[in-house]
This record gives sequence, structure tokens and C-alpha cells, in this order.
Amino acid sequence: MTQKLITQAKVSVLGDDPMLVRKTFAQFPSGVAVLALDINDEKHALVASSFMVGVSLEPCLVAVAVQKSSETWKLIKGAPSLGVSIFGKGQAALTRKLASKDRAARFEQVAIEVDESGSVFIEDAALWLECSVQEVTEAGDHWMVLLEVTKLGVGENEPLIWHASKFRELVDAQSIDIK
Amino acid sequence: MTQKLITQAKVSVLGDDPMLVRKTFAQFPSGVAVLALDINDEKHALVASSFMVGVSLEPCLVAVAVQKSSETWKLIKGAPSLGVSIFGKGQAALTRKLASKDRAARFEQVAIEVDESGSVFIEDAALWLECSVQEVTEAGDHWMVLLEVTKLGVGENEPLIWHASKFRELVDAQSIDIK
Repeated sequence: MTQKLITQAKVSVLGDDPMLVRKTFAQFPSGVAVLALDINDEKHALVASSFMVGVSLEPCLVAVAVQKSSETWKLIKGAPSLGVSIFGKGQAALTRKLASKDRAARFEQVAIEVDESGSVFIEDAALWLECSVQEVTEAGDHWMVLLEVTKLGVGENEPLIWHASKFRELVDAQSIDIK
Repeated sequence: MTQKLITQAKVSVLGDDPMLVRKTFAQFPSGVAVLALDINDEKHALVASSFMVGVSLEPCLVAVAVQKSSETWKLIKGAPSLGVSIFGKGQAALTRKLASKDRAARFEQVAIEVDESGSVFIEDAALWLECSVQEVTEAGDHWMVLLEVTKLGVGENEPLIWHASKFRELVDAQSIDIK
């Protein structure tokens, strides 16, 4: 049973069309984060596109949704701090590399900086946050993780956007209007 | 005390420079959501840029961070369902209008559709979700609200992006590389 919510939209009651959930979620534009850290000289990376800043200003909180099945999350969740980098323009291939199944190769030839805490940051990212896990709550098949920001830095590179299952970049709204 | 995290970045330990928090958070690109519903023929809108989809697929959950001081949230949080629209290309002015302080004028001349549940959807948005509040937890000066999606629809309009305190639009990453 399909119902009309908005004229001309393909709208479905949940469960009618499983692919529509993925297609609809894909229409939401996301910055892409990598949570990274070094534990005993081994580097770990967890790439996530369900990430938000501005969850709170005091204390300074951001949030990330992590699949419960994530092996990397099990390894990094107990760390005292972790680095968050938001991928920038030109880093689409790097994003795929850090999310690839070949864990050992993820950081090969990747320009990073490791903080004294073990937090790992990606060079030329759009912004960086050093965080500690403040709270983990259940959210269906994911963990909703609140991260408290302890240090932060803004880069000069524009952010990369994950949208409609591909990487996109930004232009000013005005410049499109002129076309 | 300013510490270097990444070469050439302006990085600060939290608290050193309050403006840097806002500037860094602004560097994160966000889709912009409006939560909207009709209660006794009065329409309410809550615009939020701290929104994420894909929090969970089963059950189907999205999340929004809402300022604890929000008057609109107090009015809408008890509703059985609410409409979420993600603003699309060309809707920058509409986004500002629905977030304006003049509550009575917010919906004037705005093309909407009201579901039988009272959920309000914005025409030409990038996507629509009909949701019910699943859980509200404290997150500093905001509420972290988990919304369970009950219906959803994908539009044909590309999403609008809030980035660096202005509205931006998307282009394919490849087209920029060619320049």
C-alpha cells in the first residue's frame, strides 16, 4: 500500500519497499567522519557518515552512530581519546581506502599526524576534533555515541559530501542560481 | 595554550577560543531538516541542522539534536507523529522563513501537504520522513531525540547544505576534478 504524502513523490509506508529506505536515506547529504587512533603502534580507523556536530555547545558534544557489528568499534571504544577528521575535497579515494576491508592496508601512504594521546588525524581534512567517549546508548542496530570534544581545529579544505551513494562537493547556492 | 594537531591548522584546546568552536562546527556540512506538524489547525516548525539519518535500519531510526530552550519542541514533543522534510536546492529563503522568530508568519505562502496524522511536509523538499518520537535523552544543552520512521519518500530535488554559515549546493566530485 503506497500513500501519497507529497505530490509526485514516491512515498511508502515503511516495510513496503526495503530499497526505498536506503534510497531515501541516501538522499540526505552527509559529511564523512573517520574516528582514528593508535593503540600500541597499530592504527585503527572507523569511517562513518552518520555523524553530527553541534549536539551541545556546553559541554561540547558531537555524535556518531556506529553499527553494533563493527569490529573496529570494539577495539577503540575503551580508548581515553580518539581523533575525528572530517574528509575534505579531493579525499574521496582516501575515504574509501580508510573504510576498506583490508585493515592492514588502510593507513599505507596516508598522511597523518598522531597526537601524544594516540589520536590520529588525517592531513588536509576539513576539520579535526579530539574527543573522548561520553556516553553510548542503544539505537536499534547501532550504538549512538556521544563524544565530548577536548580539542578542535578547522582546516582550509572544503568538506566532502556523501550523497546519493557518491561523493559530491560544494558550490555556493548563488552561483547555481546564476546558471 | 595552543597546540598543533595538524600542520597549518589553527587548533585549540577547548575553552581557549570560544569562537573557534562555532567556526569548527560550521565547517561540518549539514543537511537542514524541518520538523513540522499541525496541532488543532496551528502549524509548528522546528528547523534543525544537527540531524542524521541511518542511525538504525531495523528499526528505522533517525536522530535530531534539539536545544533544550526550544519553545516549539515543548509544543510538538508529545505529538503521535511529525513530518520531517529535508530542504532542497532553491529553498534557502524558505529555510530562513520557517526558522524565523515571527512564528505566525512562518507558514504564510509556503506550499505544504498535511497528512491525516497532522504531519506537515514541505513541497519540493529533497526527502520526507514521517516519524514518531522513540526516545529523548540528555545531551548537554540539547536533547538527543531518536525518531522512528513510519513512512518515507524521496524527492527529485537535490538537498541544500548548510556550511560555513551559508547555504551551499552540490556538484559531482568528478566535475570539480576536471576544472
